Formats: sequence, structure tokens, C-alpha cells
Amino acid sequence: MNTINAYGNLSATEELIPLKISRRDVLPTDVKIDILYCGVCHSDIHTARSEWGASQYPVVPGHEIIGSVVATGRAVTRFGVGDIVGVGCMVDSCRHCTACEEGVEQYCEHGATFTYGSKDNFLGGYTYGGYSENIVVDGRFVLRIPENLDISRAAPLLCAGITTWSPLKHWKVKKGDKVGVIGLGGLGHMGIKLAHALGAYVVMITSSPGKANDAKMLGADEVLISGDTAAMKSHAHSFDFLLNTIPVGHDVDPFLKLLKRDKTMVIVGANEPLTHVNAALLVKRRKNIAGSLIGGIAETQEMLDFCATHGVLPEVEMIPIQKINEAWERVVRSDIKYRFVIDMKSLKSE
Amino acid sequence: MNTINAYGNLSATEELIPLKISRRDVLPTDVKIDILYCGVCHSDIHTARSEWGASQYPVVPGHEIIGSVVATGRAVTRFGVGDIVGVGCMVDSCRHCTACEEGVEQYCEHGATFTYGSKDNFLGGYTYGGYSENIVVDGRFVLRIPENLDISRAAPLLCAGITTWSPLKHWKVKKGDKVGVIGLGGLGHMGIKLAHALGAYVVMITSSPGKANDAKMLGADEVLISGDTAAMKSHAHSFDFLLNTIPVGHDVDPFLKLLKRDKTMVIVGANEPLTHVNAALLVKRRKNIAGSLIGGIAETQEMLDFCATHGVLPEVEMIPIQKINEAWERVVRSDIKYRFVIDMKSLKSE
Repeated sequence: MNTINAYGNLSATEELIPLKISRRDVLPTDVKIDILYCGVCHSDIHTARSEWGASQYPVVPGHEIIGSVVATGRAVTRFGVGDIVGVGCMVDSCRHCTACEEGVEQYCEHGATFTYGSKDNFLGGYTYGGYSENIVVDGRFVLRIPENLDISRAAPLLCAGITTWSPLKHWKVKKGDKVGVIGLGGLGHMGIKLAHALGAYVVMITSSPGKANDAKMLGADEVLISGDTAAMKSHAHSFDFLLNTIPVGHDVDPFLKLLKRDKTMVIVGANEPLTHVNAALLVKRRKNIAGSLIGGIAETQEMLDFCATHGVLPEVEMIPIQKINEAWERVVRSDIKYRFVIDMKSLKSE
Repeated sequence: MNTINAYGNLSATEELIPLKISRRDVLPTDVKIDILYCGVCHSDIHTARSEWGASQYPVVPGHEIIGSVVATGRAVTRFGVGDIVGVGCMVDSCRHCTACEEGVEQYCEHGATFTYGSKDNFLGGYTYGGYSENIVVDGRFVLRIPENLDISRAAPLLCAGITTWSPLKHWKVKKGDKVGVIGLGGLGHMGIKLAHALGAYVVMITSSPGKANDAKMLGADEVLISGDTAAMKSHAHSFDFLLNTIPVGHDVDPFLKLLKRDKTMVIVGANEPLTHVNAALLVKRRKNIAGSLIGGIAETQEMLDFCATHGVLPEVEMIPIQKINEAWERVVRSDIKYRFVIDMKSLKSE
């Protein structure tokens, strides 16, 4: 065990403060990573504030981690000291259930071990995330960062990127498909970029006309304002796929009307009850609503490689850790285009 | 045109009365059918009572029709006088859109022509259904009734049967799959029989413990009482497919919890808003909710042939047309096991 600096929320004071936590020793299959960059996800805030049920304090948030390998266990062959690597939302899973065997560890039947605030089923205790000097993770859950990916911008791919990539691939979005991305925040902006890079005709669907220019710069071919009834009607039954990134419960009926027969709207943002779902809209053209959670390790690697090949990178605003409270407040009021990344060098000056 | 006896609802008096309607002449591609039996579907009542929007009166209900061919147009080669045939929920469609070309005419992009109360896009006027002496239908929408199918019981296959068959086939339910049929009414009882005949392990899911014995007699391997929290929990994440026949909006969350990862619950009963859908249940294991509407003509024929081969028949109670008002009241209070069939000979004595 070694005691290191981290940044987290120790109590209900809702104030992020520097703290000392212990990282586990490097086990034979482990990789120890000095953290260079960590993305800021709204989940960090929900967890630190116990908004998704009672959290286990101290919470050290952060699950969009880019770093440099500083040590490896003796059984690790895929990584060596100095490699640039990533850690996303998961650091372990049972490894033996059907989901794990199929490479969708996020759906592990015994519960994946998430990167922070999650019970560690093998070693006991709780996991601590990336607002920290370093992290020790089993090598199976460490991602290679391709050489030509700008590491100062890559961190958000490990949550926002994979969360939108996984459904695009699972539902087989392909060149020429008409894809709607609903909601333009951290997830939505990656949805546009990835769907565009896959060759889809991308329509950004938003309630905010002010987001139209940005959406086009990010790669949207068209912008559809959800409050414009005539425009929505003109797109009825025309979409091959809808990626719904709205982060709260909402009325999905206006969006269901946009789908072609037999096509699917996938919820990746809302983790709560939808306020209105008219079954008639599903029945009349055999439409589908589904959900999707982050993505497996193999598909995360596939996504990173794809982004390197296609030059896909998140739009980020870099901050030092000392600005984290201010950044969180801006995330809560959606005042960020489109993801904060913490330059973790700043933690060493604490 | 010929004027014939029919039974329908002329006005808001909510009283079914005998009426004279005109059937179209037999066109070159038409088949004229003397109606022998007509099933009673809850839709008949909804339409006659304008419960699904304002109906066009007079309404002659009935879309589970078994009859005998009495005349054919000169271009008809597939049917001859004396053939026993069926007509289901549709009598026409545009024939040229993608849906029609794929054989799913129920999803016709220009709107299928339903068997009663539907605008006839080719001939004008509205369609009249099977509570009638005869019907004239384009041969493309007429089904062959296999010889070994008991024609006094076959009528409900044409709506209740195909409505449950179509999703079972579309979602590829196969031998050994664990299938839940939610709700035991006209649709549910066919869902059990068809899923059982397909070789599935069938669990009847109902709020009424009193329905358990019946469900087993119909072919259910197991009965799960939806109000029994412990039993519901013991079936969590275990179903390959759920066929939801509940006819009204309801909280689907308890059922979503039963599905395995990546599996689907299909709504075939509720044609209205669901009262509760928690997106988190979809997200956590990539589950799906879909809808499904009756079935195409080719798959209706496939289902009839399957039922003849496997001895699948609805449970029916035969009535004369003179008992229709009483039968409707019993349908409304779910006091029927499981479908009324009108012996249409009784209409000739009016």
C-alpha cells in the first residue's frame, strides 16, 4: 500500500478537498499508472453528492483516465513502463459469467467493479477513481492509447466516447444511415462525431436553436429543433437509429414518431423513469426502445483505435484540479463545450 | 352492389341492431365469401362505441371471419367456389410500399385498409366487417383454411392468433426459450398455446392466482403471480422473451426486471400510454421494449398452416348473433374463456 494525494468529497459538505488515500500494491496482473489527465463526467458529481443513492465516503471520482505506466506486475505482458494507457468506467468484473465471456463486462451478472465508489469483490474495500496521482488496475481493464491520439483530449473517450460508440456499433449503424442524436452535451457531442465518422447522415435533435451552429461544426448534417412541430412532422418515420442522450426522464413520444418501422431509439442518458411512453407508437410500426450502458473493454479498445484512425477527438476545456469546484458547477448548469479535462500535474503542486 | 343483412351499431345508442348494407360487386381480383363464423374481438366494441376516436357509422364489426367461397372474379386463380377461407384484420393495403413488398402489410406506409370502419382507398367509402351474411375481399387478402382445422373454432386465429404469432416469430422464439406471456385473455391464451407449440418453456404471468389452473391446461409450464414479489424476484433476468398482452396502460417495470440482457418485451395489447417505464431498467442490461401489430398476410397463412399441423385451436364459446349484446358485456368484464365466435347461420333467421 502507498498513500497518495487524491481529490474527493469526504462528507456531505459537498466540498471537494485534497485527501490521502491508499492504493493497493501492484499485484502480479496489475498495472500502476501515473495519471496525466482525467475527464470530468456528470456521474462524478452525482456520486460525490450521493444523488444516485448513498455513496461510500471518501469518494475519489474520475473514470476518464489517461496516464503513463510506471510499474507492472510480473504476469503482465501487454504493457510496459512508459506506455500511455487509459482506464474507463470499469476496473474489474467477475470474468466468468456469460456477459464477461462475451466481452460485455459492463453487464457482468455479478456486477462489474466500477472505477470509483464501487465495492471491490476481490480485494475488499471500495474503489477510488482518477482525481488522483496514480491508480493500480488489473491489466485486463487497461486500454492502449494509440500513438496518434492527442492524449490531452482523449480522456473523455473512455466514458462519453464508449457510451455512444457501443450502441452505434451494437445496432449496426452504417454508412448512409439516417441517425438522430438527441441532446447536445458531453455524450451528444461524441455521438455526433462518432456517427459522422461511421458515415451516417447525422441529424442533431435539440430543444435549443442556439446549438445549431455548434452541432454542424461537430459534424451534424442537419439540425432538427424538437419544439418545431412542423419540422418534427416532416421527419416522421425517417430515422434508422436514434441515440437519446437526454440526461433526465422526459417524454419520448415526439422522438418515437421519428423512427422508421422496426428501428430503435436507445437511451444512454436518462437513468430514471421516462415521463411519457405511448405504447401505440411502438405497436403501429413495430418500433423499439432500448437502453445501453457504457461498453465492454474490447469495444472500448476498438473505439480508441477507430478514433485514432479517423481523427475523432472530444472537445475539451483543460483545468487544473484547483478549479474543480467551479467546473462542477458549470457541468451542472451545462455550461461546458463539451467536457472538462483535469491536467493532473496540477495535483502535484497541492 | 347487393344489399345484405348485417349486424352493427348505427349510432351512439350503443345498441347493436340489424341493418342492411351494400357489398361491392365482385371485381376481377375479388373473392365473395358467405360467412360461416365470426370471432368477437374487443376491438369490435371499441370501434362500435367510438372509443378509439370517432367511428364512421354504420359500423359493421368483425375481423375474425371464416367462410365459404361463393364467387370469384375472373382473375382469381387461387380460390374456387366451395373453398373454406378466412379474412382477418386487413382487406387491402397500398401494395407498393416497402412494408407491402416485405409482406408486412399491416405496417403499410399509406395505411392498410382494415376490415371494418376503414376508408377504402381504391373504391371509396368505408369497409364493413364480418357480423354479416357475406363479404367481398380482394383475393390477395384471403387466407386458405387448412382442411384439418376445425372451422367452428378457427376464427380467432385471424386476429388473436396472428397478433401473438407474429412477434413470437419476428423475435425468433425457439425450442427451449423461456417465454413469459403476460395477461390471460383472448390474446394471452393464444400466446400460451403458440409459444408452447413452438417448443418454448412457457410461463404465464398474471395478477390473478385464480387463472393458474387454466393457464396450465392451455399449455403453460409454470404460472408466475405478478403480485408475488419474492416469486417475481426469483425469476429476475431469466426470460428470453416477454409477450405483454395487457390491454391497457400499466407499469411495465416489474416485467422489465424479468428479462435477460439484450432481450425484448413486446407490447401487443396496450394501445395507449404506459404508466411507468424506468429507463434505468433498459440501460443496465441493454433490454428492449417493442410493439407489434397483428401480422402480414403471408405470416397469417404460415400461422394457420402451423396450427393445423400442431393441433392449435382457440378456446371458444359459440353464440348466435342474437346474443351479441350480452357477449359484448361479458367481453368488457373479461368474463369469457377465451373468445366468442358467432355462428353466422343465426343471422339468416333475422
